Amino acid sequence: MSQYWSKLVHSLTPYVPGEQPKINNLIKLNTNENPYGPSPKVIAALQKEAADSLRLYPDPNSDGLKQAIAEYHGLNANQVFVGNGSDEVLAHVFNALLKHDKPILFPDVTYSFYPVYCGLYEIEFETVPLNDAFEIKVEDYFKANGGIIFPNPNAPTGRLLALPEIERLLKNNTESVVVIDEAYVDFGGESAVALVNRYPQLLVTHTLSKARSLAGLRVGYAVGHPDLIDALHRVKDSFNSYPLDRFAQAGAIAAMQDKSYFEEMRQRVIETREKLVNDLESLDFEVLPSGANFIFARHPQYDAEALAASLRDQKVIIRHFKKPSRIAQFLRITIGTDEECQALVKALKNTLKI
Amino acid sequence: MSQYWSKLVHSLTPYVPGEQPKINNLIKLNTNENPYGPSPKVIAALQKEAADSLRLYPDPNSDGLKQAIAEYHGLNANQVFVGNGSDEVLAHVFNALLKHDKPILFPDVTYSFYPVYCGLYEIEFETVPLNDAFEIKVEDYFKANGGIIFPNPNAPTGRLLALPEIERLLKNNTESVVVIDEAYVDFGGESAVALVNRYPQLLVTHTLSKARSLAGLRVGYAVGHPDLIDALHRVKDSFNSYPLDRFAQAGAIAAMQDKSYFEEMRQRVIETREKLVNDLESLDFEVLPSGANFIFARHPQYDAEALAASLRDQKVIIRHFKKPSRIAQFLRITIGTDEECQALVKALKNTLKI
Repeated sequence: MSQYWSKLVHSLTPYVPGEQPKINNLIKLNTNENPYGPSPKVIAALQKEAADSLRLYPDPNSDGLKQAIAEYHGLNANQVFVGNGSDEVLAHVFNALLKHDKPILFPDVTYSFYPVYCGLYEIEFETVPLNDAFEIKVEDYFKANGGIIFPNPNAPTGRLLALPEIERLLKNNTESVVVIDEAYVDFGGESAVALVNRYPQLLVTHTLSKARSLAGLRVGYAVGHPDLIDALHRVKDSFNSYPLDRFAQAGAIAAMQDKSYFEEMRQRVIETREKLVNDLESLDFEVLPSGANFIFARHPQYDAEALAASLRDQKVIIRHFKKPSRIAQFLRITIGTDEECQALVKALKNTLKI
Repeated sequence: MSQYWSKLVHSLTPYVPGEQPKINNLIKLNTNENPYGPSPKVIAALQKEAADSLRLYPDPNSDGLKQAIAEYHGLNANQVFVGNGSDEVLAHVFNALLKHDKPILFPDVTYSFYPVYCGLYEIEFETVPLNDAFEIKVEDYFKANGGIIFPNPNAPTGRLLALPEIERLLKNNTESVVVIDEAYVDFGGESAVALVNRYPQLLVTHTLSKARSLAGLRVGYAVGHPDLIDALHRVKDSFNSYPLDRFAQAGAIAAMQDKSYFEEMRQRVIETREKLVNDLESLDFEVLPSGANFIFARHPQYDAEALAASLRDQKVIIRHFKKPSRIAQFLRITIGTDEECQALVKALKNTLKI
């Protein structure tokens, strides 16, 4: 606290990301990173950037990257916005497109950065409860609002909403922007990008941190109608002209272009997930159906916080959300390699004394 | 324009950075980049980051980099904030420390991003005229305000304010934050970092884009009292947890640690600047005294815009600020290599028919 702080600073409750421990030999299944590294073509592109040309500014508009993303999705470059991770993209989305007179809507159980953005930009929000199966029911959003946002698959539940349901929401919500945050869609969901040419109120956000194994590079993007993209550019160019450095642009272009590596890696994660779900169910865990590179599970007899602590003692870290809520007994477990997931199961058996 | 835009978006006038042309063989003296590449130690550190570890998030707090910056300046790590270029650092500074009931103060001729930030965060400002020699007179700032910010050396004039004058300002302005933007200080100025332990209202910002030749990597920082730094972290952690990717953190640490390369490169730029000033004065240019890696000059007989256009025809690009103002007849010229500056002088002689 200080007299020099703006009024806003006093009111903020910052987001707390999952732990990035500085200890070696941990099995790290807590922040939804990909267990496999990026494509060799990405590594080669990045190596080239470690050069004298770093003395020069990067392209402030990331035109090459926007073009690569547009080509991947069959869109035009003026339908693409890029940022320093999808968190930065989302920050600009809240400021540029979700700040109106009416409260915005998002699920009661969802990405916990959304209320933080609302605090930063002084946006009112209402949370809409998931149903008892932790599903989003789109009809619950058919009411006056300043905007709607949710991840699909949702985080941290992993539950998917089918594309026809998203289209039904769009048909019933034409007066405000609908943001579908597809950070995890490549692990089993059907992307709403297919709808952007038909619904000018739809914005879809993606990240290269998950399915493209580039959490360390910080690249995310949004696609939608050029008018929505234009709003994001206006805010971005009032904040920071050059948010993507030369490595981020070059690496992301190579990642968007290497489709076969991307397909192989996401299939591998999906296969490991299915095996892990079976293993956990055989230990009596209830596991929500997941379309993501993580699962959300609870054990009917064991306390989630105690389980997480016991796993940590065995050098396996997963994520437990400590806030009292109806997800307090759930654990969110990132899909690692087959070996990592087996080590997790072994540690769980040890704890559960099976 | 769109019904989906927030009210703010309609009111913004985004910043327009200097051109980053996609043409080869230009002599590019328009965006104050360093003509020399980064240290070989930086390149080596960056090459190591092109690896499988990119699948993992970077350290959200950039602790290693904060430590390296603290050591460089003889401060503690809790006096350091880092961001995605000093533009992002400044954006958070405006929001966290310069938004109060009274208008903030900055020079009438200065970095043109400042009024853009004020637009983004709806901060009132008053500009304070430079004197006829384009100098900042600190007594002009001795009045009620919500904060004070200026670059030292100032941009685009290049004029330096001596450290005792900054201290006189701090003694007379204790109720609001004073931000000294030292993007260019390493080319001849005396840093106000020496004062941060004595003045809790002082924040000093730096960039690695200029003297450390890393415009392509996007790293900037602020140093000041831990309370000011804390405010910046609160805003940053409400905006984007991971603004510095793995390359930015590793490259910046290596750059802060290689002091001898840094000393050599900044001396080289200073020497070329002195030669270029002499050459331009011999062509009858009036050149403002510069403490930066650029100079600000006008010719008594030739129109600045026409001169810039003629240079461009000869493949030399410099920056002319087109807005009608008392700097309309000035050209801002980045210090290149000796060869580039000679080519500029040759092109000017050609235009001036000397």
